[in-house]
Amino acid sequence: MNEFTTIKTRADGGVLYADFNAPPLNLMGPELAGDLGKLLKEAEADRSVQVVVFSSLVPDFFIAHVDMLQLPALRDALVEACGEPSYAAFVARMSRSRLVTIALVEGRARGAGSEFVLGCDMVFASRERAVFGQPEVGVGLIPGGGAAQHLPRLMGRGRALEVMLGGDDFDADLAERYGWVTRSLSDAQLRGHVEELARRIASFPAEGVHTIKSRIGSALPPAGEMLIDSVLFAAGARHPDAQAAVRALFIRGLQQPGDTELNLGAALAS
Amino acid sequence: MNEFTTIKTRADGGVLYADFNAPPLNLMGPELAGDLGKLLKEAEADRSVQVVVFSSLVPDFFIAHVDMLQLPALRDALVEACGEPSYAAFVARMSRSRLVTIALVEGRARGAGSEFVLGCDMVFASRERAVFGQPEVGVGLIPGGGAAQHLPRLMGRGRALEVMLGGDDFDADLAERYGWVTRSLSDAQLRGHVEELARRIASFPAEGVHTIKSRIGSALPPAGEMLIDSVLFAAGARHPDAQAAVRALFIRGLQQPGDTELNLGAALAS
Amino acid sequence: MNEFTTIKTRADGGVLYADFNAPPLNLMGPELAGDLGKLLKEAEADRSVQVVVFSSLVPDFFIAHVDMLQLPALRDALVEACGEPSYAAFVARMSRSRLVTIALVEGRARGAGSEFVLGCDMVFASRERAVFGQPEVGVGLIPGGGAAQHLPRLMGRGRALEVMLGGDDFDADLAERYGWVTRSLSDAQLRGHVEELARRIASFPAEGVHTIKSRIGSALPPAGEMLIDSVLFAAGARHPDAQAAVRALFIRGLQQPGDTELNLGAALAS
Repeated sequence: MNEFTTIKTRADGGVLYADFNAPPLNLMGPELAGDLGKLLKEAEADRSVQVVVFSSLVPDFFIAHVDMLQLPALRDALVEACGEPSYAAFVARMSRSRLVTIALVEGRARGAGSEFVLGCDMVFASRERAVFGQPEVGVGLIPGGGAAQHLPRLMGRGRALEVMLGGDDFDADLAERYGWVTRSLSDAQLRGHVEELARRIASFPAEGVHTIKSRIGSALPPAGEMLIDSVLFAAGARHPDAQAAVRALFIRGLQQPGDTELNLGAALAS
Repeated sequence: MNEFTTIKTRADGGVLYADFNAPPLNLMGPELAGDLGKLLKEAEADRSVQVVVFSSLVPDFFIAHVDMLQLPALRDALVEACGEPSYAAFVARMSRSRLVTIALVEGRARGAGSEFVLGCDMVFASRERAVFGQPEVGVGLIPGGGAAQHLPRLMGRGRALEVMLGGDDFDADLAERYGWVTRSLSDAQLRGHVEELARRIASFPAEGVHTIKSRIGSALPPAGEMLIDSVLFAAGARHPDAQAAVRALFIRGLQQPGDTELNLGAALAS
Repeated sequence: MNEFTTIKTRADGGVLYADFNAPPLNLMGPELAGDLGKLLKEAEADRSVQVVVFSSLVPDFFIAHVDMLQLPALRDALVEACGEPSYAAFVARMSRSRLVTIALVEGRARGAGSEFVLGCDMVFASRERAVFGQPEVGVGLIPGGGAAQHLPRLMGRGRALEVMLGGDDFDADLAERYGWVTRSLSDAQLRGHVEELARRIASFPAEGVHTIKSRIGSALPPAGEMLIDSVLFAAGARHPDAQAAVRALFIRGLQQPGDTELNLGAALAS
């Protein structure tokens, strides 16, 4: 596997460990999206890899959210990664990969970070440290990367509305109760559980694994619906009101290390 | 906002608090349905209102169930409220409103009361005092206001069958485990949580809130299926066997304050 | 009711108790499938029966899984039972029966055993003793009896993938959290709860019970999708690689009383 700027990789048997490493926040911008696109293509082409486990080397953050300062460059990187200028399309493509993808979340995964996780096949989250949120509503936007389609399927309409209209932070236990993540586990168990499961899946005949994954594909949201959300997000983000709301958050610490990014749910309310 | 006979209202910022006040049971009859229809129309027309929180001033009861003595008059009131002689159609219309609706349930919500709650965008229920049920099966009827479509989507087919074929009472914690309600909270937390969430949503840009709600609309059951249930309920209720079963329950205390209405689930079994 | 070789029956009011009794493992083979087909036909024709409760007289096992040594004979028995050489078709037919079916699970229900349970209307499982699994992935197969369609509807895509790609054992509490079963109950409560619920449903007017069950039918997976899984399982099972993997498991104790069948999830990993 090539070296990437924002992702550190390590192969172990049929499992590829991919650790995000774009401090201080692991923002989803052109670099991370570009590296992710390349990593997935290489891993798909390498028949020795069957499972990819995504986690983060950056303390407190899995993927903070999209880089609001680089939306045009991100769209260019996404065209390269998946053929469409849409993060939702990129996530949908990953969900349909032959690879089994597992997110191991030990920090904040909000907005595009939460939507990356929703596009993975499974998500295991740290009871002590994982935080999930869809804060877009706070600046007048909708989630553009698939959450509006994934969340109602996973947790029902009411809980999805609480998440997306409230824009608040959810810890891993509540995220598990709502079906946002596969399971919440304590730090003492989390890595062991994920590594054992990944090894186990990689040890099974690849043909059966692929057939099962493809037979469950109909549980995914329609790509067309995800694309509509993507377009609505992009259109909304160009609106002066949204830009003013984002600028106000930048002044208060958005995209900078510190309290606003650590407690974004609370910051939106004040 | 006008004054209503059966609902007391109070506006606070962008939040309208609407408290059902039709003692002793808050039966869903022509008065309550008529007031609800008017309240929703007025609130929708008032751009200062973004969120409606429904709760009850009547101890022990949120909405007991439909008023079985006033089905024809209720249908007339529903035509006025939503254009169709169907409670399911009224509930479906509320679900598609631009308003964000939150049910705060501290008492019994059975039959049409449960179905009102299922039509709201979110439901927060008192761990100590809320009770949910779909008792129609006990008199040979099916839920006519949407539960047969909402419940399997929220909790899966098996749990929906347990609820609708067993006709028993469920407390808030089990209702949360089954996905019937958004969340069960203790009385100490319940009002604070709902008021903070309502204020928070009302503080966000209205455009984003509406777009999110509309993008999640596809998670609602098809209105046509809800209407079929509505027709089946009405046809069943005119059948002599159902009427005899309802009369037998009236003799035992149905629609009167007391043990039968407090513990309707148990009353159906004896 | 006739006597069956592999099922012991007892009628009590409108409830038929059907106890699997094909020791040592209650394998789903031609005998059990044939008896089940006859039992369902007889019970459906007997208007005094409204509810069927399935449980097991064999310690540790509800239905271990399909009998891998008798797949052709099982298909013949299924043609007799439901007109199609497909276990998925048989299970789908049971789900659409006028009878209310309840599984009371106190032992292992893996593969076709889990899929039998998924086809029942409700499932109550022993917190102390029930075990669920879809181990097909371990020999390169997909679940052929409907799990690939039922599970994502009940638990969401991620959890269904964990179940079907991991192939591991799940206890009743985790199965309840995931929505695999209706509810997990302690042995002290389990039988009482199921018997009371069954009696209760049988006491209600049959017309309403049937209408409710039929109105919820759309929550079932499409029969056509289940049939595709069935065909893929059968095709996979004829492949030399799968046959070799199954033979290796037989050498280690598959389909024999003992540790491999008791802890099949663990056995697949080693």
